Amino acid sequence: MSTDIGDAVASPSVETLDRLRRIVGAKGVIDDPRDMEPYLVEWRGFWRGPAALVLRPVSTQEVSDIVKVCAEAGIGIVPQGGNTGLSGGGIPFEHDRVVLLNLGRMNNVRKVDALNYTIEVEAGCVLAEVQRAADAADRLFPLSLAAEGSCQIGGNLSTNAGGTAVLRYGNARDLALGLEVVLPDGQVWNGLRSLRKDNTGYDLKDLFIGAEGTLGIITAAVLKLFPKPRDRRTALAALPNVDATIRLLDRARAATGDQVTTFEYMPRICIDLVLEHVAGAADPFSRAFGHYVLIELTSSAENAALGEALENLLAAAIEDGLIVDAVVAQSETQIKALWKLREALAEAQKHAGASIRHDVSVPVSRVPDFVREASRRVDAHLPGARIVGFGHIGDGNVHFNVMQPPGSDSAAFLKRWSEINDIVHRCVAEFSGSISAEHGIGRLKRDELPKYKSATELALMRRIKAALDPSGIMNPGKVIQP
Amino acid sequence: MSTDIGDAVASPSVETLDRLRRIVGAKGVIDDPRDMEPYLVEWRGFWRGPAALVLRPVSTQEVSDIVKVCAEAGIGIVPQGGNTGLSGGGIPFEHDRVVLLNLGRMNNVRKVDALNYTIEVEAGCVLAEVQRAADAADRLFPLSLAAEGSCQIGGNLSTNAGGTAVLRYGNARDLALGLEVVLPDGQVWNGLRSLRKDNTGYDLKDLFIGAEGTLGIITAAVLKLFPKPRDRRTALAALPNVDATIRLLDRARAATGDQVTTFEYMPRICIDLVLEHVAGAADPFSRAFGHYVLIELTSSAENAALGEALENLLAAAIEDGLIVDAVVAQSETQIKALWKLREALAEAQKHAGASIRHDVSVPVSRVPDFVREASRRVDAHLPGARIVGFGHIGDGNVHFNVMQPPGSDSAAFLKRWSEINDIVHRCVAEFSGSISAEHGIGRLKRDELPKYKSATELALMRRIKAALDPSGIMNPGKVIQP
Repeated sequence: MSTDIGDAVASPSVETLDRLRRIVGAKGVIDDPRDMEPYLVEWRGFWRGPAALVLRPVSTQEVSDIVKVCAEAGIGIVPQGGNTGLSGGGIPFEHDRVVLLNLGRMNNVRKVDALNYTIEVEAGCVLAEVQRAADAADRLFPLSLAAEGSCQIGGNLSTNAGGTAVLRYGNARDLALGLEVVLPDGQVWNGLRSLRKDNTGYDLKDLFIGAEGTLGIITAAVLKLFPKPRDRRTALAALPNVDATIRLLDRARAATGDQVTTFEYMPRICIDLVLEHVAGAADPFSRAFGHYVLIELTSSAENAALGEALENLLAAAIEDGLIVDAVVAQSETQIKALWKLREALAEAQKHAGASIRHDVSVPVSRVPDFVREASRRVDAHLPGARIVGFGHIGDGNVHFNVMQPPGSDSAAFLKRWSEINDIVHRCVAEFSGSISAEHGIGRLKRDELPKYKSATELALMRRIKAALDPSGIMNPGKVIQP
Repeated sequence: MSTDIGDAVASPSVETLDRLRRIVGAKGVIDDPRDMEPYLVEWRGFWRGPAALVLRPVSTQEVSDIVKVCAEAGIGIVPQGGNTGLSGGGIPFEHDRVVLLNLGRMNNVRKVDALNYTIEVEAGCVLAEVQRAADAADRLFPLSLAAEGSCQIGGNLSTNAGGTAVLRYGNARDLALGLEVVLPDGQVWNGLRSLRKDNTGYDLKDLFIGAEGTLGIITAAVLKLFPKPRDRRTALAALPNVDATIRLLDRARAATGDQVTTFEYMPRICIDLVLEHVAGAADPFSRAFGHYVLIELTSSAENAALGEALENLLAAAIEDGLIVDAVVAQSETQIKALWKLREALAEAQKHAGASIRHDVSVPVSRVPDFVREASRRVDAHLPGARIVGFGHIGDGNVHFNVMQPPGSDSAAFLKRWSEINDIVHRCVAEFSGSISAEHGIGRLKRDELPKYKSATELALMRRIKAALDPSGIMNPGKVIQP
């Protein structure tokens, strides 16, 4: 039915590759196969794709020049940030007639405007560096996620990254005021506005955010900053059931003046996995409970009385049976210990065997029913599989992972990936949810998309792709089939 | 150079008009010229435009059927909400081969999901009704603006409306989680998601928001709700200069834990105008000051101690010379009296003579320099003109209005509209600002746009318009020339 994506791009000639080399100079080219390898392999080893060259430009001008040459020659371009994505969007796919364009050398913080609460950064800035630059100006850049030490802000924007503070501050999309983008014909769109209000025509910025490099290459951005938190209170609450988590969240938002920054759900199996596989982790309670929520309140006010608000919230919730026990961290060390239970979960799962993963969301009010129903269906289909469904429940985002039954064969289990995907994703669709809450589509879910999007929506997406990238050279094969 | 927009649309035949009448039935058609008039004239009388019919559908299906007939016959469609816009986007323009499609009968609140903090509404719901429905569910829908008693949510979304709570809650765009849109070919795009996180492809929703009906017709939306405020503190502060306002805002955000909902700037002339022209307004201070800010803090927490936070903020600011005096409202009556000074400003200006208006924004940090420089230039060009530059300074949004010199001729003054626009808008551009912060482009600023947008950006907008509405039937002549 659809055109083979390979048709759209041509094999680079030696002359074209030479032109590309000259644009970036010797420091900007990687062509030794061994040196290229880290750019061509997904960090977990899930995917590998070939490329004619790895290019590492240092400026928007160089990116523009590269794209112009590629557009002229019909060469595909795979943009890549820190190569920490979870859907394979930054790895070449389906054919080898592409160059890989890594943004890592474009890593300048261009400007901090503290009074405007904004920072202008290049795409290759590592997220943690953006956080640090904000902090140095007595501001907060709130985007925070596991890969923050190596992921790049350009990738965060291109995938509309989420993380653990979305409930309070929004996704990457909500944090971007302006963009600079190199378009598929090599023109530079300077949309680097640092305005809170601007109603002058179509919202182009949000088209590029979350497009995973298929409509253009984000080279810089103006990001929103916030007052730096001065008060932070963290607690782990044990709850009788999943329904109680949602009701607790509702109360917490109201009772604290919406100062809930983190609200992470973990069923008991998460605690068990971390205690078993991660050194230094400890259960703060003396007995096991079925369900847990990690709650963090923050405020930029010095005397925000968050401690009191948290204690009152928890006391009232215990009285009403919404929670059965709770510990409030009394020191920075205790805060870290509680966070460790959540943060070490990815590592713990790796040690515990193979997992079939789902990054899904449903309306917050429907999370409990969704978790129950999806678990029931998976269990009926694959008895013994362990459900590890945890995550950013405050955003309705559940990382619904299915672990191999204890003692079973990993390889045989993983062969059932798409079969289990179908069960979980169909259930998500019935609950009006999303099959990719925060990890994007990339190559991993491209062929899932048509199962869950209407023909009308897919056609709209294709029209936009065709309008902006008629030759199909931008990140070919990702997000949507042409 | 550009195609005459009139070419794109054909004159409706009697048969076509009959088909349209049948879709909506007798209650949905207005064809008596006297009854049509209120829909064809801008509410202030600034613009009038003819239409073959006024259609008032009651359902998405009817809208879809209308658009299909119009698409087939090549008839232009002007969508209209409450007809309260300030840029003429909802009034026919440039030719008479259009039907006017008023959404006012599609006014159902479809669903409130309190635990998900969302509400699903049809486009024709009056903003105040949406606020009331949220309130009835113990929630807040924070969009708030002068026309809220008659503007409709579909229009608010189509123009990405702002208002007095943007600083805290964002523009209309930030408040929409999902949309239902009738596309230019009559297909219905059901994007009515109520998810906080959804990274499954291009962000179509934000293309339609702020597009002023030129890409499709928004028929319904899922909107974000928030915990209802339980504590509210309001003060009027007098400041020595505009610079102090920005520094006060910075402190207020940090000191209150970002609970500043309103931060409205008024120079002395605003207070003078209101005192002179509006009955019942009173100056809460015993002497005049140069600059004022209306500050409001709100919190959903019962014991948020906002009063204390506000008193401390003001006391410290007085000590440091950032403010010279302040009054804190001690009752609901006093809150209303302070708000009256801000809210009666539009009315006061009308009584005081003709104004050449500018709805502009610059980075918050640059507001003081912008206001000084733009005032200097206008004064040099038109000595005696009074600058009434006030507004949502917390968002960098200044309503920079130029009032006729006292005793001068109104009509002669208004003839200088575009001359004064040029001076102010050029200054805005030099300060990296926007020539339409919150009122949109419509017909008022369509021909201004090419002066301030890059050719690259205009071309991108045209490509998107052409991709989604190739026949150019959606709100012809608005926002961008084809």
